[in-house]
Amino acid sequence: MMEYPLLVHRFLERSSVFSAHKEIVTREEHGTHRQTYADLMTRSTRLSNALAELGVDQGDRVGTFAWNHYRHLEAYFAVPTMGAVLHTINIRLFVDDLVYIINHASDKVILVDPDLVPILEPLASCLKSVEHYIVMTDDRNFTTTLPSAHNYEDLLSEASDKYSPLYLDENAPAGLCYTSATTGRPKGVVYSHRGIVLHSMTEAQTDTMGIRERDVVLPIVPMFHANCWGVPFTSALVGATQVLTGVRPDPESICHLIESEKVTLSLGVPTIWVGVLDHITRSGRSYDFSSLREIASGGSAVPISLIQTYKDQLDVNVVQAYGMTESSPLISYNRRISQLDDLTEGEKLQLSGSQGPLVSGLEMRLIDDQGNDIAWDGEQRGELLFRGPWVADSYYDDVRSSETFIDGWYHSGDIASVDANGYIQIGDRVKDMVKSGGEWISSVDLETAIIAHPAVLEAAVIAIPHERWVERPLACVVPNSDFQGKLTKTEVLDFIRDQFASWWMPDDVVFIDEIPKTSVGKFDKKILRERYQNHQSK
Amino acid sequence: MMEYPLLVHRFLERSSVFSAHKEIVTREEHGTHRQTYADLMTRSTRLSNALAELGVDQGDRVGTFAWNHYRHLEAYFAVPTMGAVLHTINIRLFVDDLVYIINHASDKVILVDPDLVPILEPLASCLKSVEHYIVMTDDRNFTTTLPSAHNYEDLLSEASDKYSPLYLDENAPAGLCYTSATTGRPKGVVYSHRGIVLHSMTEAQTDTMGIRERDVVLPIVPMFHANCWGVPFTSALVGATQVLTGVRPDPESICHLIESEKVTLSLGVPTIWVGVLDHITRSGRSYDFSSLREIASGGSAVPISLIQTYKDQLDVNVVQAYGMTESSPLISYNRRISQLDDLTEGEKLQLSGSQGPLVSGLEMRLIDDQGNDIAWDGEQRGELLFRGPWVADSYYDDVRSSETFIDGWYHSGDIASVDANGYIQIGDRVKDMVKSGGEWISSVDLETAIIAHPAVLEAAVIAIPHERWVERPLACVVPNSDFQGKLTKTEVLDFIRDQFASWWMPDDVVFIDEIPKTSVGKFDKKILRERYQNHQSK
Repeated sequence: MMEYPLLVHRFLERSSVFSAHKEIVTREEHGTHRQTYADLMTRSTRLSNALAELGVDQGDRVGTFAWNHYRHLEAYFAVPTMGAVLHTINIRLFVDDLVYIINHASDKVILVDPDLVPILEPLASCLKSVEHYIVMTDDRNFTTTLPSAHNYEDLLSEASDKYSPLYLDENAPAGLCYTSATTGRPKGVVYSHRGIVLHSMTEAQTDTMGIRERDVVLPIVPMFHANCWGVPFTSALVGATQVLTGVRPDPESICHLIESEKVTLSLGVPTIWVGVLDHITRSGRSYDFSSLREIASGGSAVPISLIQTYKDQLDVNVVQAYGMTESSPLISYNRRISQLDDLTEGEKLQLSGSQGPLVSGLEMRLIDDQGNDIAWDGEQRGELLFRGPWVADSYYDDVRSSETFIDGWYHSGDIASVDANGYIQIGDRVKDMVKSGGEWISSVDLETAIIAHPAVLEAAVIAIPHERWVERPLACVVPNSDFQGKLTKTEVLDFIRDQFASWWMPDDVVFIDEIPKTSVGKFDKKILRERYQNHQSK
Repeated sequence: MMEYPLLVHRFLERSSVFSAHKEIVTREEHGTHRQTYADLMTRSTRLSNALAELGVDQGDRVGTFAWNHYRHLEAYFAVPTMGAVLHTINIRLFVDDLVYIINHASDKVILVDPDLVPILEPLASCLKSVEHYIVMTDDRNFTTTLPSAHNYEDLLSEASDKYSPLYLDENAPAGLCYTSATTGRPKGVVYSHRGIVLHSMTEAQTDTMGIRERDVVLPIVPMFHANCWGVPFTSALVGATQVLTGVRPDPESICHLIESEKVTLSLGVPTIWVGVLDHITRSGRSYDFSSLREIASGGSAVPISLIQTYKDQLDVNVVQAYGMTESSPLISYNRRISQLDDLTEGEKLQLSGSQGPLVSGLEMRLIDDQGNDIAWDGEQRGELLFRGPWVADSYYDDVRSSETFIDGWYHSGDIASVDANGYIQIGDRVKDMVKSGGEWISSVDLETAIIAHPAVLEAAVIAIPHERWVERPLACVVPNSDFQGKLTKTEVLDFIRDQFASWWMPDDVVFIDEIPKTSVGKFDKKILRERYQNHQSK
């Protein structure tokens, strides 16, 4: 067979011809911006050439500090095509971490959204490696204190439109993304061209996301998070229409986009879908979601009650996806296998709360504390290990790599059971388990049960210190707007009492306005643990 | 990302766990044979070990001379897993070619079906490299004059069941298949592990065959032909049920299998589908084909009339696939792209006669006689060139390679036009065009028009020598059984007259009982040309 490296730019080379007129739609303050795949090719070519003019060379890191929009997408292709590395920077990081990762990555250029410029301006003096800032705005008069700042559109209009891709080794780096660490600084994951291509080929398979040419794909997941779940790449591979949420998407604008663009597949963390549902309920508005073939939800476990509500109330299928920054990210996708067609509706609903079977192309192990393999019986829990061609083998230039990548396996830190069909059921992160009197209590199991209460919007269960039992569970509950100040501790505990051993039951319930979220929208239990470390249960 | 070679045996490692109870069904003389993916894993492991006992080593070629059945499938995985090369031998080759390819491949072992043993027995003395023959039969008393012959089941029952795969470089050879050449001996194509894996990942994508876990796949295409279009591999990748046709499948047994096994996807050359339709019409029987999501037809162009009849009469979608031995084989698959949804039903039908858009992952060019690129305007015709990771870069140990593989491109010899959407419309093989008075006449266009006549079963148009025009077209027509001896030359020519310039019209029509077919079921025009080289048109 031919020696033919798997390279990210092949995607756009294909879609700009075979899907030349298909669109990239970006939500803007007033209306939408529309361009075609042919436009995307032309403009990303100009961006490559502009970056080369600024001195970006093969292997250099180019940062993006931006929302989801067409210019960000142009960078997704322009940077790897020239052999440079796209470093998508999380716009919600704390300032210290921001400085750390930009310096650690040695970004040479940063592409930044105008509304995010104020975050970078005070840090510029600490960002020694950055030689140029490019502000992604139409406003040619935009001013900033950032040194060596350029206007994106000025650069593009001055740049050559000659397409000069580098056909490098497929193992060359194409992307870089930092993941928040439990302790210490964020850790970087380098994505190779080969990894991205194989991951995209998998997301286009019917048994996973099945992204196809006729899809209209709306990722709510930020483009700075784990390659936006790979969706911009996979969509370009097949020529699917892409809809991007622009600056600060809110539930209402997401609903509008689904309806007006006839979105067929949307993807985001559960918090997004809770918010969308809440908006619909509170506003009393109805939207036409009939174009949606499914919603993919990942990043944290989706409560079954949410899946059921979407089905009953909106006739929308919510499918669990599971993955992480270290795995590009797709690990599993809960498309029901044929062997489970005979389940009752109740059993099917229960199953939809699982993370689904491992996608083809990867390998998985389940191990106990001693590193021994555990049976896939749907009961016993252990840590999940993965390996495969789109799983990282280390963190970028980080001594902590050896804690996570051991003997060729990525140790995920996720506690789960796996059933005989290979369905993954995530319990907790190792660090989120409550260890009471030497026994493990799953915070996720408790949360899932609590959130099924109709008056509960969100719930997080955390471990708080206890003199006798070392740790005990505390439930932090956000009531629905209609029930604020009305829902009681007893109601919550009574609702779940039948499902758990008495020693699993939370010692107390606190009612709060919202669950703090991490920069990628997951529950930030670290903050809750700090807040309630001296909590006295009543 | 991890260094993780793409290897064929990963497929079975996955499906024997994740789809352990899914079935491989083989049609037998009486009833069906059924085994699971777990069984397939166990038995293919035993076969690997048995072959190793016989002296098969990494890189050695193991031939198969067999129909489609579970033992053949066991060899599909056993041989590459041990690092050896699976050489699927075409059972319909002429004796001279058989001897040539087995010697050229230096097959060390040949796995042979009992009913095909009589073909090999007289050749054994010429097959110097073959050290062992393994007869794939339950009959332990089967006797043969083949030297060093073994019974397949005896070998398996004596072999170890210890799984000892070789995790070799992904570019290592896994398969070998010879393709018939226009002139001279067959030419061998070597398939790498990497090529097969990437090809399978593509066939599992929704925009191509979309083979998924819940499919029940029935390949009618022989397992000795171009990896059975890759279907046994792709099915194992996703864990789909496989239905195999056994010895000498006929249209009736194909209909029975579709109905009884609830087949969702079946694949074969147009001749098969003509035969199936003819069987249904003639027998007056009706079958339940409601499980079929589509039929894939390839190997030669499918007449639009056949597509329409399947839709109207059986409510079955026939989708054109296009490919060749040199490309593993999938090149294009005619799944309609969204941009063409607004076509009229008539235009859609017309479009279904095309070979569809190039699958993602490959590249294509269209060139004229001088090697210049031709516009993709749906009008101009040229030769198709391909490249990509599952396209061959040479023929195995063959000086003719340099005629076909030029500057990194595979020159297919197929004449086609490509439209602005990238849809391929195959005209003729270069060698099948009729050159009349210096102008090209497409035999395929004429055939397609003739076969639309309701009284015509099959039609082939060939060039016959002509004193003045050098060549002129002759139509060879097989009438439907009801019209044999009744259909006239005038009726045929009048039927197509409106569609062609007068000089394109065949000079004569001859009525024959059947069109001679090549070993893979394509029209063998070489035989017709010889038969009619002195034909005098009336």
